[in-house]
Amino acid sequence: MQYIAPLANLIEHFRALPGIGQKTAVRLAYHVLDMDAAAAKSLAGAILEAKEKIGYCSTCFNLSDRNPCAICDDEKRDHSVICVVEQPQDVAAMERMHEYKGVYHVLHGALSPLEGVGPDDLRIKELLTRLYDTNVKEIIMATNPNVEGEATAMYIAKLLKPSGIKVTRIAHGLPIGGDLEYADEVTLAKAMENRREI
Amino acid sequence: MQYIAPLANLIEHFRALPGIGQKTAVRLAYHVLDMDAAAAKSLAGAILEAKEKIGYCSTCFNLSDRNPCAICDDEKRDHSVICVVEQPQDVAAMERMHEYKGVYHVLHGALSPLEGVGPDDLRIKELLTRLYDTNVKEIIMATNPNVEGEATAMYIAKLLKPSGIKVTRIAHGLPIGGDLEYADEVTLAKAMENRREI
Repeated sequence: MQYIAPLANLIEHFRALPGIGQKTAVRLAYHVLDMDAAAAKSLAGAILEAKEKIGYCSTCFNLSDRNPCAICDDEKRDHSVICVVEQPQDVAAMERMHEYKGVYHVLHGALSPLEGVGPDDLRIKELLTRLYDTNVKEIIMATNPNVEGEATAMYIAKLLKPSGIKVTRIAHGLPIGGDLEYADEVTLAKAMENRREI
Repeated sequence: MQYIAPLANLIEHFRALPGIGQKTAVRLAYHVLDMDAAAAKSLAGAILEAKEKIGYCSTCFNLSDRNPCAICDDEKRDHSVICVVEQPQDVAAMERMHEYKGVYHVLHGALSPLEGVGPDDLRIKELLTRLYDTNVKEIIMATNPNVEGEATAMYIAKLLKPSGIKVTRIAHGLPIGGDLEYADEVTLAKAMENRREI
């Protein structure tokens, strides 16, 4: 009888979130109980609303509250350049740079034989389909600069070789082993600028 | 247009929680989008349910889903000993010790002139009312071992002096400046054992 049931249940739910341990979960739960009712309702509502309203763009598979997403639907962007990233977070990181004017394709992961992630688990087929329909001139592989990301970039580059479309890789200005999502804007801009054909 | 509106809203809500910075908030928000719908619903439900079902016990002012709370309602506990703590978290810490068999009184804070917390902002009047009705033999002051906690203990001890009820203070086995909520069970048990009359 250490915590009453609804409190224990809330702590358990917070603990299931990434990076939240027992003590942080307890602190968060007590904080929620300390909030006024409207604020707690607003927090719960934000979770439900995000989950309900946000889906995937059927073109680039980025998270979006509309389909096609705002980027794919933007005529001012250059639809002949596609930047391929692993996760929706990576699109947000690229957009923070304010320099890239092309469109995106989100793979939702990287090839990883050890974790059982093969080509069919990623949105690679959908990327190939996009190339048939539109006049794409360049594919920029902006997967993470680690083993899985490199392997994924190489794999897709090989697949695209027969099409004759230029495939480039963002430069290794990013520290190897790092996460694209957390790169600073300058490093990311440098990496884009020094991209090379593969 | 870095994050779409429902996602930005969710990130904002997570950021408002204690100890959650921008990057953690973003990670949590993406995690929620990655959950299946039932899990997200369950998380939102846990927040609402905890907020709805949990209130304060009208006797001891601990958080409870019933009134009186399970501790105040337990006839096997010793109702002649009241342990006075600052927060509901502190009751949970005491209960983890599995040694204390008395009841509690939660002040909901400590005296702090600098932060504008005076005696009327705490549940001190309610503590005095309890003493008229019941046959209380000892009040254990288990406020935090810091300046505010000590001042609160002294203030209440002075108030109770005319009543003749024994008022004790948990021993300073706890490191000064620490938080009762995070004390380990052994230190806490030691501190209870060495309590002295004030």
